[in-house]
Formats: sequence, structure tokens, C-alpha cells
Amino acid sequence: MRPIGVIHSPFTDKEQMPIQASRSQTIGLVEVYPEFADGLKDIEELSHIHLFYVFHQSSGYALQVKPFLDDREHGIFATRYPYRPNPLGISTVRLLSRQDNALDIEGVDVLDGTPLLDIKPYVPDFDLRTDVRAGWYETRSKK
Amino acid sequence: MRPIGVIHSPFTDKEQMPIQASRSQTIGLVEVYPEFADGLKDIEELSHIHLFYVFHQSSGYALQVKPFLDDREHGIFATRYPYRPNPLGISTVRLLSRQDNALDIEGVDVLDGTPLLDIKPYVPDFDLRTDVRAGWYETRSKK
Repeated sequence: MRPIGVIHSPFTDKEQMPIQASRSQTIGLVEVYPEFADGLKDIEELSHIHLFYVFHQSSGYALQVKPFLDDREHGIFATRYPYRPNPLGISTVRLLSRQDNALDIEGVDVLDGTPLLDIKPYVPDFDLRTDVRAGWYETRSKK
Repeated sequence: MRPIGVIHSPFTDKEQMPIQASRSQTIGLVEVYPEFADGLKDIEELSHIHLFYVFHQSSGYALQVKPFLDDREHGIFATRYPYRPNPLGISTVRLLSRQDNALDIEGVDVLDGTPLLDIKPYVPDFDLRTDVRAGWYETRSKK
């Protein structure tokens, strides 16, 4: 795995960060390295994309954590907490516009300079799930 | 990045595969390696999880591809096609039950033996997007 680009955001400090992209209206910029720019063909037709990236400022991991939204410990795989065995993050953001290899996005929730690994389209037919039971999040994620 | 487990499925051949997890009702098994099993605490409260994995039988990549659902070329980042610069896949599956470090899942759409990198909870508050425009998928993904 190597970066295909970098995510620019106004966040330079973990303390300032929104907890999830769905709670952020912050504008960011995805810079795809020129060698991968041809891979963006037709992406401007999409309103939402998934960004896959590295939590580059997380070092080490814990198997049980107290996440931002709760005061009890949960297994890391039952949370979206960044200190994971593989520090892999995903954010679903709104794609506002594209200029060549640069994507303007809304809903950024990552640190400035975050290494980008992949972009995939958000496709309701694949990504929407109904009848979901979200466990401990049910009572906590609305806070 | 190193595997935290392995996904077992009935699919041993790419030709047999469902195109997306949302179209699959196939049962599979996620085996999390014992050293990471403590990270599964409370996961059984969740009805749906995201699996992050490596497309381990994809070698090389193309920046423009004709995906399974269309007969026109699109940029790889506007598709979910497996031959990506970083061969990173995501599937959202239903979690049926857990026994220690083994998760029974419904909706598997990966090859048997796929290396697992991460598991995250599907949280509607974070993952649901409405008002989505899915570009070329709008006319093609219902096929």
C-alpha cells in the first residue's frame, strides 16, 4: 500500500476534529497524485465518495477502547476509534467539484496531510442498509 | 498493514462471485486471529459490520476499467472494480452470530481465504447518506 494522494483539511490538531464526516460540513480538498489522475474519469458524476486513508498520526493500537461517544470500553472492532491494528480510516464525503486531479469535498473529518489510499463511489444500491441494529451506538451516537 | 484474520466463503473462483455484498445472501465466516479476539468485545450487539480486506488475487491495476455493470470505461476511482492501485476492498455484511473469535456473516462477496485488515461497525448515523447521485451507476447498477 502506498498513498495515491493526500487529503487537505483545516484540521491540524486532533482536538479540533469533528467525530465523523456525517457531522462535518467542513470543506476540504483531495489531491490525487498526477500519475493516478486518469483514475478519476467520470467521478464528477457522483455526489458522494468514500475516502480510504491512513490514520497517520495514530501510533500503536488498543484492543479495547473508550470511544469518543461513550464512557464504557468496547472492542476496537465494535468502534470507529483510530487506534486500530491496521490504522485504516474511511470517510464518506460529498463531492462538490473536480478540477483535474483535485476534488473539492464537503464533510472532511481528517487531519490535514492525511495519506489517501483509495476512493470508491458511494452507491446506494450497494451501501445503504436498512433494518440496522447499531448496538451501543444506538443510545450514544446521537449525543 | 498485516492481516488480523481471514474471511472464509464458498467462493473459490472469481467467476462464481456475486457482484456486491448487497446482492449476496451467501453465508461466510470471519476468523479473527486469537491475538486480536479481545477487539471483538460487544460486536455481537451490531447487526451489520464493514469488512476491510485485500483483493489478494488482484495483481496490478488499471486506471480506467470497464466494470461488471457497464460496457463503457470509467476511472477506477469511480468504480468498485478490484484492480486498484491499492487493492483494498470493503463489504458491508450482516452479522449473524459470534463464537469467540469467529463471526458468522450473511452477504459475503469475497473469495475464500481473503485476508482481513479491519472490521468497523455500520452505524446509520455515520454511514447513511440520502440525496445521493450515483452517476453512471444510476442507470447500470440495477441490471
